[in-house]
Amino acid sequence: MTTQTYDVLGIGNAIVDVIARAEDDFLVRHGMRKGTMTLIDEARAHAIYDAMGPAVEISGGSAANTVVGLASLGARAAFCGKVKRDLLGEVFTHDIRAAGVTYTTPPAADGPATARCYIFVTPDGERTMHTYLGAAQHLRPSDIDAELVAAAGIVYLEGYLWDPEDAKAAFRKAADVAHAAGRRVALTLSDSFCVDRWREEFLDLVRSRTVDLLFANESELKALYQTADFDSAVAALRTDAALAVVTMSERGSLIITRERTQTVPAFPVARVVDTTGAGDLFAAGFLYGLARGSDLEAAARLGALAAAEVIQHLGARPETSLRALAEENGLEAGAVER
Amino acid sequence: MTTQTYDVLGIGNAIVDVIARAEDDFLVRHGMRKGTMTLIDEARAHAIYDAMGPAVEISGGSAANTVVGLASLGARAAFCGKVKRDLLGEVFTHDIRAAGVTYTTPPAADGPATARCYIFVTPDGERTMHTYLGAAQHLRPSDIDAELVAAAGIVYLEGYLWDPEDAKAAFRKAADVAHAAGRRVALTLSDSFCVDRWREEFLDLVRSRTVDLLFANESELKALYQTADFDSAVAALRTDAALAVVTMSERGSLIITRERTQTVPAFPVARVVDTTGAGDLFAAGFLYGLARGSDLEAAARLGALAAAEVIQHLGARPETSLRALAEENGLEAGAVER
Repeated sequence: MTTQTYDVLGIGNAIVDVIARAEDDFLVRHGMRKGTMTLIDEARAHAIYDAMGPAVEISGGSAANTVVGLASLGARAAFCGKVKRDLLGEVFTHDIRAAGVTYTTPPAADGPATARCYIFVTPDGERTMHTYLGAAQHLRPSDIDAELVAAAGIVYLEGYLWDPEDAKAAFRKAADVAHAAGRRVALTLSDSFCVDRWREEFLDLVRSRTVDLLFANESELKALYQTADFDSAVAALRTDAALAVVTMSERGSLIITRERTQTVPAFPVARVVDTTGAGDLFAAGFLYGLARGSDLEAAARLGALAAAEVIQHLGARPETSLRALAEENGLEAGAVER
Repeated sequence: MTTQTYDVLGIGNAIVDVIARAEDDFLVRHGMRKGTMTLIDEARAHAIYDAMGPAVEISGGSAANTVVGLASLGARAAFCGKVKRDLLGEVFTHDIRAAGVTYTTPPAADGPATARCYIFVTPDGERTMHTYLGAAQHLRPSDIDAELVAAAGIVYLEGYLWDPEDAKAAFRKAADVAHAAGRRVALTLSDSFCVDRWREEFLDLVRSRTVDLLFANESELKALYQTADFDSAVAALRTDAALAVVTMSERGSLIITRERTQTVPAFPVARVVDTTGAGDLFAAGFLYGLARGSDLEAAARLGALAAAEVIQHLGARPETSLRALAEENGLEAGAVER
C-alpha cells in the first residue's frame, strides 16, 4: 500500500482570477447572472475584459483555492490541474507552489491559453464570475498521476471539472484510483448552473458512492433536487449521501449524515468585502479537520473560520496564515498531529 | 496654439507590480535594501520571483499611478510609456484605459517583455521594490507625441526615466515640446538611489528650469544635496527651484517657493497597509489642484488625501473614486471647473 504523503489532493481547473469592482447595474446592463459562474469563449472573454474596470490578477480556481487553504492550515496538500506554458500559467504555478502546495501537472505546450476567470465584485461583496477555461479544459486522464492520488488521504474534486469532456474522464480515473487505494473522495457541486448541466451524473456519483463526501451550498443543493424547499432537499441528500456539508452563508453550515443533521454557526465577520472563495475555504477547513481526525463539528468550525478570513479581502486565497488564525481562535488546527 | 485637451500628461515606465507580503528578515536574508527601488536584470527577476511568496498582480508604474489618480479625481489625464505586445502589456493597457486615462503609446512588437516590479510589503506597510524594466526602457523620442505633449497643461515626468538612455532622450524631447507650447513641466525624483545615479543631471534640470515643479520625499531631497540635514537641503532647494513639494510621510508635506515654505499636514490614516504609491498619489492630488487653479495649500491637502487612500490597501492604484472621497472630505476637487 502507498504511504500517505498528502492529506488532500485537489483536482480542478487551474485559473487566474481577474477581479474588478462593479455596480449592480453594470451586471444588469451586460446581462450577467449575479452570484453565478458562466462559461465563456475567447471572444466573450475579450468583450468582458474590455467592459471591465481596472482589475487585479490573483491566482484562483475552486479546488486550487481549497488546497492553498489546506496548506495555510498546515496540511500536506497537492494539486492537479492544467495551465499552458504562458505568463498566466507561470503566475498560477508560482502562487500555488509558493503557498506550499505540491503541483506537478505538466503545462500544455500549445493550444489555448491559461484559464482566466473574470470576477465582478458588487458593493454587497457578492461575486459574479465568467470563466474562459482555455488550457484547463484539457486536463486529461494521463495528467492524473496514480501514485499521487494513492498517496493522498482524500481526493477533492470540483464539479466544474464535469464541463470539459477530458477533465470528466480525468475525474473518474482519479476517483477509481483513490478508492482502489482505500482513500476517500470528496466533491463540491461548485455552482447551481453547473448542477443544472450535470444533475443526473452528480446524483449518480453520490448514490453510487463514487463520492464519499459532498460539499454544496443552498442553491446548489436545491438545484440538485430541483426543489425550492430546502428541507426536502436536505432530507433527500440524507438518504443519498454518506456525508455531506451544506454551507448557508451567514447562517453557518449543516452537517448531514445518515444519523443526524447538525448546524454549525458561521464565524462573525466585520465586513464582507468579496465572497469569492468562501465555499472553497470552508472546504479547506472542513477537509483539514477530517484529515486530522477532528469530529465533524470541529471540522465545520475550522471551515467557517477559513471562509471568514477569505471574504474579508479581495481574492480567493488566504492573506494570512490560517494555522495562526485557528490557534488565535482556540480552534487548534494543529492539535491532531500525525 | 494647441488646445489644452488634457490637464496632465504623465510620462514614465509602464510597469505591472507583482506584490507579496514579506517579513523583514526575508529582506535581510536576500540582501534587499528596505524602502528602495533596485533595478534588476531578467536572471535576478527570476530568482526573486522564485523566492517570493504567493503574489498579486496590479498595474503600477510611478507616473502611471499618478495619472490614474488624476483621472480618479476627475482630471483629463494621458500617459506615455512602453509595454510589449504581451499579456502583461495587455493588462497594463487595460487597467490604465479602464481608469479613464488616454494611453496611445504603441507597444513594442519584439524585444524584452513588459516591465515588472517585484514588491515586498513588510508588516509595517513599507515596500521594497525590484524592477525589471524590460520593454519600458525602450521608450524612445519617437514615442513622444508632440501634439499630445502640447495639448497637456502639465507634463509630469518620473526620475526613473533617467535610467534608460532612450527614455532620457524621450524625457528631454517632451520637456522641450512642453515649454515651446507654453506648458509646465513637473518631475518627481522617484527614489534616493535614482538621485544618487543622476544627481548632477537632476540638479541641472531644476536649475536650468527644464523642470518647473519638483516632487521629492525627504530621503530623495537629502540625496540630491548630499546632506543628512533636512533644513539645509530645503534651503538649497529654495534657491534652485521655482516650486517644489517635499513629502514627509505622516508629517505631511512642505511646499517650497522662493518666498516661503509651508507645511501641510498629512491626512489621518486608520492603518497603513502598503505605502506603495503614496508619493505617486500625493503628486496626483497636488497636480490636480494646480491644474484647476487651487492655491498650493489646497493642492497639497488633496495630495495628502489621495496618498492616504492608496496606503490603506495593497497596490498603488486608488480603489475608490478619489473625486467622491474629496467631496466627502470637503475638499471639493471639482470646485474649480474649466
